[in-house]
Amino acid sequence: MKRLFNDPYDVVEEMIEGYVSAHKEYVKMCDLDEAQGRVVLAKDAGTKDKVGVIIGGGSGHEPLFIGYVGEDFADGVVIGNINTSPSPDPCYAAAKACDNGKGCIYLYGNYAGDVMNFDMGAEKADEEDDIRVETVLVTDDVVSSDNIADRRGIAGDFFVFKVAGAKAATGADLDEVVAAAEKANANTRSMGVAMSSATLPSKGGPIFEMEDGDMEIGMGIHGEPGVRRGKIDTADKVIDEIMDPILKDLPFVEGDEVYVLVNSLGATPLIDLHICYRRVAQILEEKGIKVYKALVGPFACSMDMAGMSVTLMKLDDELKELMDAPCDTPYFTQK
Amino acid sequence: MKRLFNDPYDVVEEMIEGYVSAHKEYVKMCDLDEAQGRVVLAKDAGTKDKVGVIIGGGSGHEPLFIGYVGEDFADGVVIGNINTSPSPDPCYAAAKACDNGKGCIYLYGNYAGDVMNFDMGAEKADEEDDIRVETVLVTDDVVSSDNIADRRGIAGDFFVFKVAGAKAATGADLDEVVAAAEKANANTRSMGVAMSSATLPSKGGPIFEMEDGDMEIGMGIHGEPGVRRGKIDTADKVIDEIMDPILKDLPFVEGDEVYVLVNSLGATPLIDLHICYRRVAQILEEKGIKVYKALVGPFACSMDMAGMSVTLMKLDDELKELMDAPCDTPYFTQK
Repeated sequence: MKRLFNDPYDVVEEMIEGYVSAHKEYVKMCDLDEAQGRVVLAKDAGTKDKVGVIIGGGSGHEPLFIGYVGEDFADGVVIGNINTSPSPDPCYAAAKACDNGKGCIYLYGNYAGDVMNFDMGAEKADEEDDIRVETVLVTDDVVSSDNIADRRGIAGDFFVFKVAGAKAATGADLDEVVAAAEKANANTRSMGVAMSSATLPSKGGPIFEMEDGDMEIGMGIHGEPGVRRGKIDTADKVIDEIMDPILKDLPFVEGDEVYVLVNSLGATPLIDLHICYRRVAQILEEKGIKVYKALVGPFACSMDMAGMSVTLMKLDDELKELMDAPCDTPYFTQK
Repeated sequence: MKRLFNDPYDVVEEMIEGYVSAHKEYVKMCDLDEAQGRVVLAKDAGTKDKVGVIIGGGSGHEPLFIGYVGEDFADGVVIGNINTSPSPDPCYAAAKACDNGKGCIYLYGNYAGDVMNFDMGAEKADEEDDIRVETVLVTDDVVSSDNIADRRGIAGDFFVFKVAGAKAATGADLDEVVAAAEKANANTRSMGVAMSSATLPSKGGPIFEMEDGDMEIGMGIHGEPGVRRGKIDTADKVIDEIMDPILKDLPFVEGDEVYVLVNSLGATPLIDLHICYRRVAQILEEKGIKVYKALVGPFACSMDMAGMSVTLMKLDDELKELMDAPCDTPYFTQK
């Protein structure tokens, strides 16, 4: 165990306290009772003439989700325990705090617990405050199911949130924001590889066992089973193995233009990620697929898990414009 | 071993190739022969009426150094092998590429190999091209020596580079940029804790042995010995132990205003860093020291080492203004 915390049962509360204190120019706590200390808001949440953009899910994936709350991105985040969906009341509180008459959108990865609790939050917002809340689930993980609607959301969350946040910032109505988020999700595919388990603070040890030197291709960000376990291969071979299903799935074809995200699951350093990116770029060039821009770094993590994922989003003019739109949050700022 | 690369002896070259490809809107390779493929430049390096800001050192600390090359920050980076200083000729090439008549400043952490090779680069730039190059060494690691001039540079590099980059962007002359960088360094103190070794690709294993569950207070970012090895304590106790020498050293006193950097050495996740930041903020509040702003995340790493460091920079109006100045690089953008 190589982690730093105090009481393992205070990890999320202390993280939130530290976060709101460190990034006080950007965020504040939601002071509604129903928020239960688990909703963090952009400083100007609920004050602009725009759709409220609300993201969330379990803790342990930072900077996802909390790191993307700020200006012209997400207005609020609902925070669950580690690898656990948030409760319904905080989901409701976030909608109440972020709505300014145009309604709200919930955006999160497709996990059963999150769906159940965010849906209950949306229902309460409708019944008690007449706030319209729509939901777009992120389903980018190609190996998690053959049926797209059943797939999990992983690092593709970032692209879908960014697109929706930028669309909302234009003053678009809720249907337009939903349409942009749905297009972003429909155009996004990801796959990852894990080389270790994350450490669960309450257990003081790994969530699952993995022998040193092994990898699991396709593993999810909570340790969900992947498609193959074996010895860690060269970066190029690993990238070849995860790029193939990604490219075939949409499919991404010659002439397409893509935004690339090479994401660390936590402990995999930038040096390795850029070696991986090098191979991603080679493959895309061979296929005649143009890289519009790329992001490389920790965007959607699993605490201290070693591993990485590749995400591609196929672009059109609207998606390019929304991805390029300025935003300012503690973990993603763009001029 | 939980790392992804190809031939371990190609790690730095492939990282650079991937980096320049991924971040092509920001950077380009330096095409001078003397650069030896180890100098990366901002797209507009050497074209503006400003002092050329050059940073560098060994690889493995990413985003330090390469991540801070871009607009209104560093103009060029000289890249050594892992944990190894760059060679003199690339240091020279960076000066030649970044100079536009106002001279250049070399900024890097105080390590003997770096000092020797950057000095040789500066000498060659003077002799062959009549370029004036000044150097400011970063010496923020309080436990590395009682004598400040002998101290190593760790995460405080970031503050010194940011201040110098912003000062140069104002069009200030070389003496003024040197003075700003020297003030930033004089006002900055850091200390860290390591909980594991980084993995050295060429060895396929750890650089040094550390038992699981142990920590070493004060360890350097290449694994230089710290002040105490023991069992990992609670985050609050660890922060208490590293904040005390930092505060006493400058000293930071009641009424001071500081910029805080809570830095991951690689594998320590944001959740832990924010728990650590929470305690840093409590201590500063108790002491009557005001936090101006804070940064929390991976800024100066040691590949996949588990651990973190705390850096404080005492601020005056000039340092605040320079820290707040806009900049745009792949790993630090500020509006």
